[in-house]
Amino acid sequence: MIKQISHLGVAVKDLEAAREFYRSVLGLQSSEPIMSEDGRMQGSLVEIGNAVIELLQPLGSEGVMAKFLEKRGEGFHHICYEVDDMTAEVESLKAKGIEVIGEPTEGIEGLSVFLHPRGTHGMLVELVEKNK
Amino acid sequence: MIKQISHLGVAVKDLEAAREFYRSVLGLQSSEPIMSEDGRMQGSLVEIGNAVIELLQPLGSEGVMAKFLEKRGEGFHHICYEVDDMTAEVESLKAKGIEVIGEPTEGIEGLSVFLHPRGTHGMLVELVEKNK
Repeated sequence: MIKQISHLGVAVKDLEAAREFYRSVLGLQSSEPIMSEDGRMQGSLVEIGNAVIELLQPLGSEGVMAKFLEKRGEGFHHICYEVDDMTAEVESLKAKGIEVIGEPTEGIEGLSVFLHPRGTHGMLVELVEKNK
Repeated sequence: MIKQISHLGVAVKDLEAAREFYRSVLGLQSSEPIMSEDGRMQGSLVEIGNAVIELLQPLGSEGVMAKFLEKRGEGFHHICYEVDDMTAEVESLKAKGIEVIGEPTEGIEGLSVFLHPRGTHGMLVELVEKNK
């Protein structure tokens, strides 16, 4: 059961330049950069009233985000929906034949998992069950 | 001044198949299909708690949406932000050198204009001033 959009992930080449665009052009503030655990990307959250844009800049040429940026360029990367119960959700998705990538893992926001765009009409989908 | 995300535009090949995916897999209801004025696409709105996904299917091979789908495949097409004052917004964007595509036009929701992804770190941006 999807509650709402949690955030949109957006790939950018230069996090500071992107933050400056959101601030000076769109008038939107963003958080200080946060490094991912594996050191392969840094991100910043832009608050927009009813949702959040997660700006994501790959560091180095390894990792999924670097490969995405190389292939597709800057822009939309994934949509994250908040769910109530990750275990029930993943079970239900698998029963419907939807391609779930790996198993849910614990992230900053809570338990998270991705669905391959092949099974979702073209969008990489993240599901998150937020920490209570 | 951006108030909030109004909707996300998503290109799909087959509107009914996409609506069925959102309904049966994500548990999200969508509106009955609406035809665009020029007859070149049909759309349906998926309500998701805090925002809306606008599913867009091109009809025929002409038009921007058909060309997008041919080039990029199904998936994210644009993000629409709600603004308070379109005239002031467009003036401010042009003064900052942001590429505004044409002039604002009256749509179903209100006055709307697009910003080229070249100037927005990779996302086609729509701005809408909603009818009061």
